[in-house]
Amino acid sequence: MKNITLDNYVVIFEDKLDFLIEFIAEKGYSSVFILTDTQTEQLCKPLLNLPDAISIEIPEGETFKNLDTCQEVWEMLLKCGADRKSLLINLGGGVIGDMGGFIASCYMRGFDFIQVPTTLLSQVDASVGGKLAIDFKYAKNLIGLFKDPVLVFIHDKFLQTLPEQQYLNGWAEIFKHALIADKQLWNEIKHLSNLRQVNIQDIVFKNVAIKSEVVRTDPFESGRRKILNFGHTIGHAVEALSLKNDEHPLLHGEAVVIGMICEAFLSHKYGTLHEDELEEIVQVLRQHYSGYPLNKLPFSDIWNFMRMDKKNNKGTVLACLLDSIGKASWDHEIAEEQLKEAVHFYIQTFR
Amino acid sequence: MKNITLDNYVVIFEDKLDFLIEFIAEKGYSSVFILTDTQTEQLCKPLLNLPDAISIEIPEGETFKNLDTCQEVWEMLLKCGADRKSLLINLGGGVIGDMGGFIASCYMRGFDFIQVPTTLLSQVDASVGGKLAIDFKYAKNLIGLFKDPVLVFIHDKFLQTLPEQQYLNGWAEIFKHALIADKQLWNEIKHLSNLRQVNIQDIVFKNVAIKSEVVRTDPFESGRRKILNFGHTIGHAVEALSLKNDEHPLLHGEAVVIGMICEAFLSHKYGTLHEDELEEIVQVLRQHYSGYPLNKLPFSDIWNFMRMDKKNNKGTVLACLLDSIGKASWDHEIAEEQLKEAVHFYIQTFR
Repeated sequence: MKNITLDNYVVIFEDKLDFLIEFIAEKGYSSVFILTDTQTEQLCKPLLNLPDAISIEIPEGETFKNLDTCQEVWEMLLKCGADRKSLLINLGGGVIGDMGGFIASCYMRGFDFIQVPTTLLSQVDASVGGKLAIDFKYAKNLIGLFKDPVLVFIHDKFLQTLPEQQYLNGWAEIFKHALIADKQLWNEIKHLSNLRQVNIQDIVFKNVAIKSEVVRTDPFESGRRKILNFGHTIGHAVEALSLKNDEHPLLHGEAVVIGMICEAFLSHKYGTLHEDELEEIVQVLRQHYSGYPLNKLPFSDIWNFMRMDKKNNKGTVLACLLDSIGKASWDHEIAEEQLKEAVHFYIQTFR
Repeated sequence: MKNITLDNYVVIFEDKLDFLIEFIAEKGYSSVFILTDTQTEQLCKPLLNLPDAISIEIPEGETFKNLDTCQEVWEMLLKCGADRKSLLINLGGGVIGDMGGFIASCYMRGFDFIQVPTTLLSQVDASVGGKLAIDFKYAKNLIGLFKDPVLVFIHDKFLQTLPEQQYLNGWAEIFKHALIADKQLWNEIKHLSNLRQVNIQDIVFKNVAIKSEVVRTDPFESGRRKILNFGHTIGHAVEALSLKNDEHPLLHGEAVVIGMICEAFLSHKYGTLHEDELEEIVQVLRQHYSGYPLNKLPFSDIWNFMRMDKKNNKGTVLACLLDSIGKASWDHEIAEEQLKEAVHFYIQTFR
C-alpha cells in the first residue's frame, strides 16, 4: 500500500477496498452517507461494500454543481438525521468531490468527509488540496472554501470503466503537472502514442505527489500554489462559455488543453519559454487532443470571464506562465491585446 | 482603548470610529463593502465615515437569514467586482454578523470581514467565537462554518439608539454568561432593577472576556464551549416554533430566557443546582422578562426540534446544566419526559 501524507490527512493508494471499510468502522461514525451521481451509483457504488450507508444520488454533470443541488442534499441529510458525527463519502469525479466536500463542510458547520475519486481527472487533481466549491451564476467555483477531507482513497479499479474522453480529460492535468513542475515526467510521457499503455497507478501516484508538494507549501494559494493554474486562466473562461453555448460542452481537461496552448504561447512571446519547447508542447498536445473552434466564442466574452478570475487582484488579469518545461512562475499580468494574440495562435495551430 | 486578543484577531472597544477607518486604510483592500439591514443602514451607517465603501442593504430580521439572501449578496459582490482582497464590514446585529461572515467566507473561498456589532446581543455574544451560519428550512443555523473575522469593533454609541426590547434581548446572554461562568458578575447584576442604569461598556467588556476565554479553550465546540448553550437547547426550539407560529415572534434572548428557566429547573431536579439558587434565578429573570404562553406550542414540536440540535449525538438530546450559579457542565442527556416537566415548571412559574 502506497500513501502520501499531508498535514491533516492521508492519500491512500490501495487495491483492497476493505481498507476503506475498516477505516470507517474504526472511527465510529453516527451515520454514513455516500454521495454519488447517476454514473457512479451504477458503476462504482457496487464495488464498495457498505450496507449500512445511506445513498444520496444527484444528477451527473457540471450543470448540477450549484446551490440548488446542495440544498437538495442538505434537506436529505436533515431528514435522515445526519449530525456532526456523521460521515459523507464523495464517490465520483470532481463535481461530486468539490460539491460534496462543500456540502459536508457547511452542514452544522462541518462534519467529516472522505474523497473517493473515480475519474482520472479527480484522482490526479481535485482530490488533493482542500479546494471545495460550487458554481454560481456564470462564475465557476465562485462559492466555496478550503477544507481537508479525513481521507482520500484512490483505487484504480474505478478507472477501468472510464470512457476514452474522460481518460483524456484527466491526462490534461497530468500534462500540466509535468509542464509546471516535473521535466522528467514530461520526458517520460511526451513520446507516448497510446495513453492507455502505461502503468496508470504509477502516473497517478506521481501526480498526487507533485500536487501535494505544491499545496503543502502554500495551502491558501497566496503564492506558489498559483502555478497549478497554468492553462486555467484562459481555460476556465473557455470552459464556462462552452458550457453556456455548446450542445456538447468541452470537458474541463479539454478546455485546459486550449488554455495551456494559449498560455504556453504567451510564455514564449512575453516570457522565457524557448521556441523549441513551445513547439514540443503544442505538438504533444495536438497529438492527443483535437482542435476547438475558438473563433466562434465572442472574444469579449472570453476576456470578461477572465477578468472575474479569483486569482486576480484589483481588476488586472493574472496568469501563470512557463519559464521552461518543468518550471513555472505566477502573477504575470495579461492584457486584452495579448489574449487576442494567444487566441489567434491557437486558431492557427489547428488550422 | 480596551481590547481582548484572541488567536487570530482582536476585539477592540473604542470610542473613536477613526480607529476603524485607519485599520482599513492600512490593510490596502482592493474594495470595501458594508453589509447593513434597513435599520442599521439608517441609524448606524451614517456614524461610519467610509465614503469609498459600497453599501449592500438587506431586509431586516431572522426570516431573511437564509440562502436566498446570501445569493442576492453574492450576486451583488460579483457584479461590483469583489475579489479575494476585498473586505466586508458587517454592520448590524447577529443576523448581519452570522450571515455576512458566512457570505464573505464562501465567496471565492473566503475574503476578509470585520464584525461591527450594533446591538447589545451581538456585542456580548455573536461577534466573538467565529460561528457563522444561516437558517435552512426549519432548522436554525444549520448551514455555516467556523471562521474568524480580522477584527471585531465594539462601539457603545450604537447602543444608544437601541429600543428597550432589543436591549433586554442582549441582557439574556449577559445573565447566561454570569450563570455559567461568573458568580461575581451574577451578584453584581442580580439586584439591578433598571438595566439601563449600569456602565454598559464595562458589562460588555466582561461578557466578551467570558466568552473569549471559553471559545479559546475549545474553538470547535467539542467540549467545554458547549456551556455557552445553556438555555439554548430548549430556547432554540421555542424560538424556531415562535418564528413559525407567532405574528410577533420571540426574540432570540427572550427564547433563551424561557430555555434558561426550564434548564435551571432540570439542573436542580436532575443535577446539583441548589433549590435556593433555582429560585433566585427564576426570580431575577421574572423581574425583567414577561411570561410566554408555552402551552400553545405543541409539545411534540418542541421535542422534535430539540432532537435536531447540532450538539446532539446519535439521536439523543444533550443539554448544558448548571452545577451551581457560576458553574456549568455539558452533555447531559434529556429525555422527553423531563422536557415535559420543565415546560410544566415554566408554565407554573408564570401562572
